[in-house]
Amino acid sequence: MTQAIEYISFEEARALSLELLTLAGFSKGHAETIAASVLKAQQDECHSHGLYRLMGCVKTLQVGKVDPNAEPTVDTETPGIVRVNSHYGYSLMGFHAGLPHFIEKTKKQGVAAMAINNCFHFSALWPEVEALADAGLVSFAVTPSHCWVAPAGGTKPSFGTNPFAFGWPRAGKHPFIFDFATSASARGEIELHRRAGKPIPLGWAIDAEGNPTTDAEAALNGAMLTFGGHKGSALSAMVELLAGPLINDMMSSESMEFDDGAGVTPCHGELLIALDPQSFLGASMTESMGRAEKLFSSITDQGARLPSQRRYEARDRNKDKGLPVQAALLVDLRAMLAELKAAVPA
Amino acid sequence: MTQAIEYISFEEARALSLELLTLAGFSKGHAETIAASVLKAQQDECHSHGLYRLMGCVKTLQVGKVDPNAEPTVDTETPGIVRVNSHYGYSLMGFHAGLPHFIEKTKKQGVAAMAINNCFHFSALWPEVEALADAGLVSFAVTPSHCWVAPAGGTKPSFGTNPFAFGWPRAGKHPFIFDFATSASARGEIELHRRAGKPIPLGWAIDAEGNPTTDAEAALNGAMLTFGGHKGSALSAMVELLAGPLINDMMSSESMEFDDGAGVTPCHGELLIALDPQSFLGASMTESMGRAEKLFSSITDQGARLPSQRRYEARDRNKDKGLPVQAALLVDLRAMLAELKAAVPA
Repeated sequence: MTQAIEYISFEEARALSLELLTLAGFSKGHAETIAASVLKAQQDECHSHGLYRLMGCVKTLQVGKVDPNAEPTVDTETPGIVRVNSHYGYSLMGFHAGLPHFIEKTKKQGVAAMAINNCFHFSALWPEVEALADAGLVSFAVTPSHCWVAPAGGTKPSFGTNPFAFGWPRAGKHPFIFDFATSASARGEIELHRRAGKPIPLGWAIDAEGNPTTDAEAALNGAMLTFGGHKGSALSAMVELLAGPLINDMMSSESMEFDDGAGVTPCHGELLIALDPQSFLGASMTESMGRAEKLFSSITDQGARLPSQRRYEARDRNKDKGLPVQAALLVDLRAMLAELKAAVPA
Repeated sequence: MTQAIEYISFEEARALSLELLTLAGFSKGHAETIAASVLKAQQDECHSHGLYRLMGCVKTLQVGKVDPNAEPTVDTETPGIVRVNSHYGYSLMGFHAGLPHFIEKTKKQGVAAMAINNCFHFSALWPEVEALADAGLVSFAVTPSHCWVAPAGGTKPSFGTNPFAFGWPRAGKHPFIFDFATSASARGEIELHRRAGKPIPLGWAIDAEGNPTTDAEAALNGAMLTFGGHKGSALSAMVELLAGPLINDMMSSESMEFDDGAGVTPCHGELLIALDPQSFLGASMTESMGRAEKLFSSITDQGARLPSQRRYEARDRNKDKGLPVQAALLVDLRAMLAELKAAVPA
């Protein structure tokens, strides 16, 4: 499935994204934070979270669950906690509303947490831990999704795909970042296999009777599996707890009930924790954080990759070339834009 | 390899442990915190971290690296951080010296971190996150070890076995706790296979040339693997960074150099992060934390286990029976005690 790629300038892609989102009904704040996230992913050739997501954002609005004008509110009362209420808008504007307070608290206390509540979520977590790394902070981010994944030893879904992201700042270099689903695969990957009529690898899922399956259709009607057996399963439970009950928001099963078959992106919460190396290390910060480079070298010197290496290579490669976009997607996006324009009353 | 088990009372086991540790030269504070940890593990039938470890503690002292009288010092200056310097004693006394401050800060700030530096480590992390859960807190704990584990895609060790532990308090129930190595297996398990002349499962290790191996000897001379491929490998790197450079302590490779072939338990640091549900949830705490029970039921109702279920079942079973100890180990411990007693000048 090779797809024709077209390069467009970052500015052109940004203008297209903003016009599309604004015409669809998103406020300036939502349009800008959504555009920034999908453009960043597109630049890194992380297509599953790139411009393609604009289609979903617009369609989700038409279903009527997401509030495109929701203004996030921020509560900074507790010394180490920033609470953002997204009021049923997308998560990204909420993240950016809380970010300056979150950075400030982390630098003051040494460690802080940010809880984002009542948000719809479709974006990757790595741009968020990267923003924190750009501010010099170490951080984690977790969020549930919809209830599709069976616990180790079980046969029925208890968890979402529950991503876990981590970011670590590196002086003068792209930060060390990972962002992975605690499920063995992404649900979208199983859907792609189903559409292509291809079998899925063993270990991704079980059928409705709990038997291992390579049939994508049976997998979608059964349950996905976590990565790493009982350890991945434990991590997935941790994500549910941290971004659910701890912050008074929905777990994957509750979010799925809330969706009630509408099939929009999950509505739930997100928890971030950040740590300030300067507060931990004081005068020894440069030397001690610098020692981390020994670990990274020991990995790359033996030919292994750091987690975000492919993304960074794409980013650097595309810096002057613009954004690589699938030609077919560009056609769809421009058609959607024309449709939205045509619908605007004269 | 069934082993004869003998039940002894908790009090008898405690007295034996304290006498052994004190005669070996440990201060009262170290003897008590070490004894408490191994007794807790023994009660839970977690034999690898139980009374068996007393032999290692005494032998490690004889090598001369660990200071059996080190008095931990605690620094609470930064609002969200407790820093404990263990001054090259065992980690457990350091943990207990910092614990009340750590709990206090977490309840005040909503989230706090505790860094334990310059400590020798042999104990499991679950008793520590359990102590925090008993105080009503959610927590994580990480620590490196010695450099034995290859990164995903690599052939040479970059990481330690790097455990990751998590604790979640449950009203009126044993807390939800997991504590797993980010390596596919424990190093001790590979050693047990070598001694028994048994092959190890594929996926645990590679030989010195980087080829998958089921030969325990070749594995010990090669490299262990992480669990869960590149995801487990990313987590293992995270543990190195958090409990190493972030807190100005040694990574697994540095700790191994420091050991310099002495073969004692690793000397390094430990990082804990705790979150206070009361600070996050206020008046809605009971209701929101109670929703976590829906997740636990959805796991156990389908016949899957919660991570620490076996330990808790053992604990409850042994409550009135006493501590189950391998008869051969009891013989060894009593012989060691007699030897230490005989060496005491009249």
